[in-house]
Amino acid sequence: MKKKHKILNDPVYGFVSIPYGIIFDLIEHPYFQRLRRIKQVSLTHYVYPGALHTRFNHAIGAFHLTQQAIASLRDKGVAINLEEAEAVSIAILLHDIGHGPFSHTLEQTLIHVHHEELSLLFMEKLNEEFDGRLDLAIAIFRDQYHKPFLHQLVSGQLDMDRMDYLNRDSYFTGVSEGVIGYHRLIKMLNVHEGRLVVEEKGLYSIEKFLIARRLMYWQVYLHKTVLSAEIMLIQCIRRAKDLRSQGIPVEAPPSLAYFLNQEVSREDFLKDRDLLLNYFATLDDTDIAAAVKQWQNHSDPILSHLSYGLANRKLFRLSFYDQPLREELLTELRLQLAQHENLPSDGEDYFIISGKETNAAYSTSQDEINILLKDGTVQPISLVSNHGIQSRSFTQYYLCCPKQLTINSEQFNKV
Amino acid sequence: MKKKHKILNDPVYGFVSIPYGIIFDLIEHPYFQRLRRIKQVSLTHYVYPGALHTRFNHAIGAFHLTQQAIASLRDKGVAINLEEAEAVSIAILLHDIGHGPFSHTLEQTLIHVHHEELSLLFMEKLNEEFDGRLDLAIAIFRDQYHKPFLHQLVSGQLDMDRMDYLNRDSYFTGVSEGVIGYHRLIKMLNVHEGRLVVEEKGLYSIEKFLIARRLMYWQVYLHKTVLSAEIMLIQCIRRAKDLRSQGIPVEAPPSLAYFLNQEVSREDFLKDRDLLLNYFATLDDTDIAAAVKQWQNHSDPILSHLSYGLANRKLFRLSFYDQPLREELLTELRLQLAQHENLPSDGEDYFIISGKETNAAYSTSQDEINILLKDGTVQPISLVSNHGIQSRSFTQYYLCCPKQLTINSEQFNKV
Amino acid sequence: MKKKHKILNDPVYGFVSIPYGIIFDLIEHPYFQRLRRIKQVSLTHYVYPGALHTRFNHAIGAFHLTQQAIASLRDKGVAINLEEAEAVSIAILLHDIGHGPFSHTLEQTLIHVHHEELSLLFMEKLNEEFDGRLDLAIAIFRDQYHKPFLHQLVSGQLDMDRMDYLNRDSYFTGVSEGVIGYHRLIKMLNVHEGRLVVEEKGLYSIEKFLIARRLMYWQVYLHKTVLSAEIMLIQCIRRAKDLRSQGIPVEAPPSLAYFLNQEVSREDFLKDRDLLLNYFATLDDTDIAAAVKQWQNHSDPILSHLSYGLANRKLFRLSFYDQPLREELLTELRLQLAQHENLPSDGEDYFIISGKETNAAYSTSQDEINILLKDGTVQPISLVSNHGIQSRSFTQYYLCCPKQLTINSEQFNKV
Amino acid sequence: MKKKHKILNDPVYGFVSIPYGIIFDLIEHPYFQRLRRIKQVSLTHYVYPGALHTRFNHAIGAFHLTQQAIASLRDKGVAINLEEAEAVSIAILLHDIGHGPFSHTLEQTLIHVHHEELSLLFMEKLNEEFDGRLDLAIAIFRDQYHKPFLHQLVSGQLDMDRMDYLNRDSYFTGVSEGVIGYHRLIKMLNVHEGRLVVEEKGLYSIEKFLIARRLMYWQVYLHKTVLSAEIMLIQCIRRAKDLRSQGIPVEAPPSLAYFLNQEVSREDFLKDRDLLLNYFATLDDTDIAAAVKQWQNHSDPILSHLSYGLANRKLFRLSFYDQPLREELLTELRLQLAQHENLPSDGEDYFIISGKETNAAYSTSQDEINILLKDGTVQPISLVSNHGIQSRSFTQYYLCCPKQLTINSEQFNKV
Repeated sequence: MKKKHKILNDPVYGFVSIPYGIIFDLIEHPYFQRLRRIKQVSLTHYVYPGALHTRFNHAIGAFHLTQQAIASLRDKGVAINLEEAEAVSIAILLHDIGHGPFSHTLEQTLIHVHHEELSLLFMEKLNEEFDGRLDLAIAIFRDQYHKPFLHQLVSGQLDMDRMDYLNRDSYFTGVSEGVIGYHRLIKMLNVHEGRLVVEEKGLYSIEKFLIARRLMYWQVYLHKTVLSAEIMLIQCIRRAKDLRSQGIPVEAPPSLAYFLNQEVSREDFLKDRDLLLNYFATLDDTDIAAAVKQWQNHSDPILSHLSYGLANRKLFRLSFYDQPLREELLTELRLQLAQHENLPSDGEDYFIISGKETNAAYSTSQDEINILLKDGTVQPISLVSNHGIQSRSFTQYYLCCPKQLTINSEQFNKV
Repeated sequence: MKKKHKILNDPVYGFVSIPYGIIFDLIEHPYFQRLRRIKQVSLTHYVYPGALHTRFNHAIGAFHLTQQAIASLRDKGVAINLEEAEAVSIAILLHDIGHGPFSHTLEQTLIHVHHEELSLLFMEKLNEEFDGRLDLAIAIFRDQYHKPFLHQLVSGQLDMDRMDYLNRDSYFTGVSEGVIGYHRLIKMLNVHEGRLVVEEKGLYSIEKFLIARRLMYWQVYLHKTVLSAEIMLIQCIRRAKDLRSQGIPVEAPPSLAYFLNQEVSREDFLKDRDLLLNYFATLDDTDIAAAVKQWQNHSDPILSHLSYGLANRKLFRLSFYDQPLREELLTELRLQLAQHENLPSDGEDYFIISGKETNAAYSTSQDEINILLKDGTVQPISLVSNHGIQSRSFTQYYLCCPKQLTINSEQFNKV
Repeated sequence: MKKKHKILNDPVYGFVSIPYGIIFDLIEHPYFQRLRRIKQVSLTHYVYPGALHTRFNHAIGAFHLTQQAIASLRDKGVAINLEEAEAVSIAILLHDIGHGPFSHTLEQTLIHVHHEELSLLFMEKLNEEFDGRLDLAIAIFRDQYHKPFLHQLVSGQLDMDRMDYLNRDSYFTGVSEGVIGYHRLIKMLNVHEGRLVVEEKGLYSIEKFLIARRLMYWQVYLHKTVLSAEIMLIQCIRRAKDLRSQGIPVEAPPSLAYFLNQEVSREDFLKDRDLLLNYFATLDDTDIAAAVKQWQNHSDPILSHLSYGLANRKLFRLSFYDQPLREELLTELRLQLAQHENLPSDGEDYFIISGKETNAAYSTSQDEINILLKDGTVQPISLVSNHGIQSRSFTQYYLCCPKQLTINSEQFNKV
Repeated sequence: MKKKHKILNDPVYGFVSIPYGIIFDLIEHPYFQRLRRIKQVSLTHYVYPGALHTRFNHAIGAFHLTQQAIASLRDKGVAINLEEAEAVSIAILLHDIGHGPFSHTLEQTLIHVHHEELSLLFMEKLNEEFDGRLDLAIAIFRDQYHKPFLHQLVSGQLDMDRMDYLNRDSYFTGVSEGVIGYHRLIKMLNVHEGRLVVEEKGLYSIEKFLIARRLMYWQVYLHKTVLSAEIMLIQCIRRAKDLRSQGIPVEAPPSLAYFLNQEVSREDFLKDRDLLLNYFATLDDTDIAAAVKQWQNHSDPILSHLSYGLANRKLFRLSFYDQPLREELLTELRLQLAQHENLPSDGEDYFIISGKETNAAYSTSQDEINILLKDGTVQPISLVSNHGIQSRSFTQYYLCCPKQLTINSEQFNKV
């Protein structure tokens, strides 16, 4: 008998079944295979060395959880027909297909288009190749389908995307803080008036999920050494672009060279979609990594210093503060840099970086997680929880600069 | 108080303590950091998508197990002084530092030197940088120290290398078959007349370890899709070298270009060690991956076909047979290829590959695993085990070629 | 060579080393072996069927974590000599030795002495048997030693007791919510002015620990079905005592019979310590379980009804409310019961039970968890955390009665 | 909407769904609830302290795996209708319901009927209570249904019973040796001409499964300390029966007393089924444990010595030998015992026990595991495997006696 499924081994969930047909064909497509070369969490492996998993792994995992969610909802009598099930599966599979090299890190540096918009462009291009079979998936992805809970499975405060990445990032970093009881969470999902709800007895699990997410932010995603490496990478790409714009040669593989040479905007992508998508589709982490290695020997001291640091993990120091940095302190640091004998005197724009990071595990202003109470009514979790949902966003200011510079800590209010 | 250790998160073992001092400094060295860019199991992730871990992860893990083995042996009264403990730790940390891109896969294609010899050259170079502090580590690595059990911890049929890679490859592939009870194994180690032995009650655990290793070979390391991908990579590099030797340009990052342009032998490395090591040290998986992507557009149809297949996971079919392939069958396949409209007619040397793979989980001809019986005597496990140690090696013959070719299966004796 | 340690297999932590000497001898003692017959979490297995682990498992686990904490603190330069290390190990090993059958459940019903007091009495008795070798352990247990951090490891808001039970109860229930990063927590411990502190970078882990504990309370320890079973057990024992006090025979194994026949107070234990401890030491879960099974056939309908329900898991319904129950509602239920044809009409004192449960994951009024900030100062976590430590206690009121009775839910304010 | 399933938390598999209806009702039945009080692996917890899981846990787990096997087979086009699915689920759920206290240990001592026969009697009794709804389950259990693969899922060399107990015993003992890749195994099942087969690519997994089973036998089930405890329990019950048969009172809970007083045979059960099943159904581990504790104080020194040892884990020494013990050596030991001042001089029948244990992980004489080869033919695994299936049974002889006796080891041929 002909097999209906391809089985993949996923260390996080075990076997994942991929049905032959459009789902299998999309995974086989070079656009999707490319995700094998884009790390899920950028340079996090410089702190958590196991965190080498990719957008490919994540997309497959989120697809797998979506199958479980569909089964669980159907088991409760929620109507989801075959076409809808396939469409929501396609939408989750492709939700991150627009990510470029190092995922979020270079999103505003190398490409000036949000990855979700690129995901949509890829879906539209694939829809043409697949003769319109992605129509419904695209409608769900854009939240234009009359069963909003399908969109919420793909994108929401309790979607299969978040569930997978918390599990997966925990598994590959080894940080147990992110482990969530996804089995229980999925079993507790239900639909009420077309929207996703969580049954009341899943309340503690949701609280735990939100806390796990918050802790993963501060312990992993915004870890200061990770942030420092990512900032250095941004500066490195910025410098390469600047040098090229000044006519100074900076070697790079052809697809990277294309995006170093010009600022490509959303409008450009819309205007010349097929060409630009194909350029973009050949670009991934390996181009950046190979280029950075080469740039260690570049004659520009700023570029070579940043590249050496990135290639060999000699990273800037990053400190967090609970208020914005005063301008005079930055001035003082720039002066130190200018006078430092081993650092490029004109490097201040690339070597002294300040900014802020904000995180809220949960937002009460967006589409809230709703709880289906035992009496049949529905309430947002922020009203139901006895334990205080942390909805307030939380901001920290940072300073990132070479370890050779001295920060006068009294002048700062360090966290 | 000053910290004595740096803590790393390893998803396999949890926290790993790295003592500040020479161990920490070696890990920080660019030669070692480079291992972050060399995957432990080459292209295995094409079958087991999570298998993205690197030689860096493995070296740290093997180092960690070595600390446990030292503690366990000392607990039993085996004398290991501070200097010896450090030296064996250095030896295990650096045992794989000589691996090139894609580890074993390209060992006889890109570089014609065994990785252990390169590891030794790196150690000698580092020994100079560290003023002779690696002398004892090198002696242990070369088995020239008067306590042979220290060498056996680094290299033997039950060394910390094998223990780590079985654990780690299981974790990242998700194949539970390789999980070994390493805690128990390490607790059962002892030393008898200077050599490593295993206490009798560890007998079942050793049997399980040998079986786990054998199964991992056939289920993971020699999986036919993995082997196919690796063979294609070898052919791809071979073709790039051939083209260059014919004067046809083949773009590549500079360090890769260096090794594509000439056959570098062991003698070359000995003659011009520092220069060649530095070239070699800038070469890793990312160069190959970036080059292969570029080569998809090369004008040579053989190179572009292989590169496209590798970059997008369109792999040759590989089949195993229990006897060598008959020459007339290969001839028939070459004829098919020559006449196939979508395959390069002159590609037979790169597109029709046959060979064999041999595996024995355990060898009775080498230094055997010895069991310390309860009566105080020592016997090799092959004599002690009641359950038949599989020492006989096991060979399979393979044929690897494009899926478009038809193999007349009646003529073969397929496994 | 003589072995120094006995190795135990613990599914939660792997191997646990028990040093030969007083630690081993205490574990071998019948008083300690008795803990094998006392379940850690009473009747929780009626909801989480795997939760069959015992006080024996927990004591060994807490001992194991204490060894890790000692090693971690010493690694940071905290002075803990051999005698102190042994004493704190003994204290944690024996901290729960005074628990009676079904742990906390019957603490105020069968024995009117707090288990910590009984633990102390057992330690004093053992101290006599072991010729005063428990002196220091007892001083630490009573917090009368000049290094208070040793007592805090045994009993405090972040002690090895809590760390083990969260891990262990998670493992055996399968509720992932309780999994804590104990490795990280222990690595972050330090001592400041003689008291335990947690280094600042362990802050998130502590928050996670407190949340895990709170969630385990509501999801496991105070689960309504668990609470219902425990309430029924209390009523069952109460009834058996009442019947006996009325001269009605109620069969029971001899040691249970002793405690059913009389109220044994703290004063009694102090007066006649050795005799009473020996009676108590023969009493465990198996006596209660065997007796309850027999009582199913007792002629008293109240006792037989409760016993049948307990033996066959036909449990009362328990509901939580956010305010105390009004007396008239209880009156109405008692009336229903009196008129119900299948329930004993005079059973109201045993069949209609109301009460309250209060939980705070963390108390700011007790000895707080203190954080050692990077600047060297120490602050209580409730001041340092940006994320709002839940110190407020949280109370729920419950009603527990047979399912046959109808609760007019409008009159209640159900949670 | 009414729920269709009850969810149970199983630490081994996570959530287990129990469909409301006959499956749920059978689990609720007192006969099944009784399995909560029968440990799966008898006294194994004396060596592996976590091994406290029960036949209840195992039956639920085997039921869960059966659901997965049904789904996997259906996915391959094997026809299994609703009624058959329910019947095979009932058969696996009840396959061990006939186990008495301490499972296999007392099977030939306390009750002289094999547990499978008692399981069948219970099923027939339940079939009457459930108006014939167990007819098909019973036919499957007895292998009298025309689809033999359904019986093979319940009882065979690769049944759901074995798969669950290897997983579960590994989880609760902490012995990783027994972990099997059950997901993979179940995915590889298929049906060929009505009988269960394993697809060829599952070959390694089957080999691993057989090895895991063999190692669990020697490392856990036949561990010498476990065996010693079980032998002591058998002697203890034997002695209690002997004393009672001599008219000497031996206290025991009523249902235990019933079986101590008389030898109950298979014929008795058939003759007086309902009465005897009800007696038997009230008997479980707690009766034995409570009685053994009491018997420590019995005036008979043989009974009290055995009981004290069992209650406080002071166990006999057990040694394995590779050939039967010579009679003169046993005679010499009996002499020692008769003259020992602290042991009962007439205790030889209870204190000096010799016997043998045989294990084969796999039998080629029974219904073999069959492999579905890629060419569509089916072969028994013993012919297909390249790695030598261990089908030969393996026997060890043991001697079990008090540690106070001296065994002249030269005279024995100890393993």
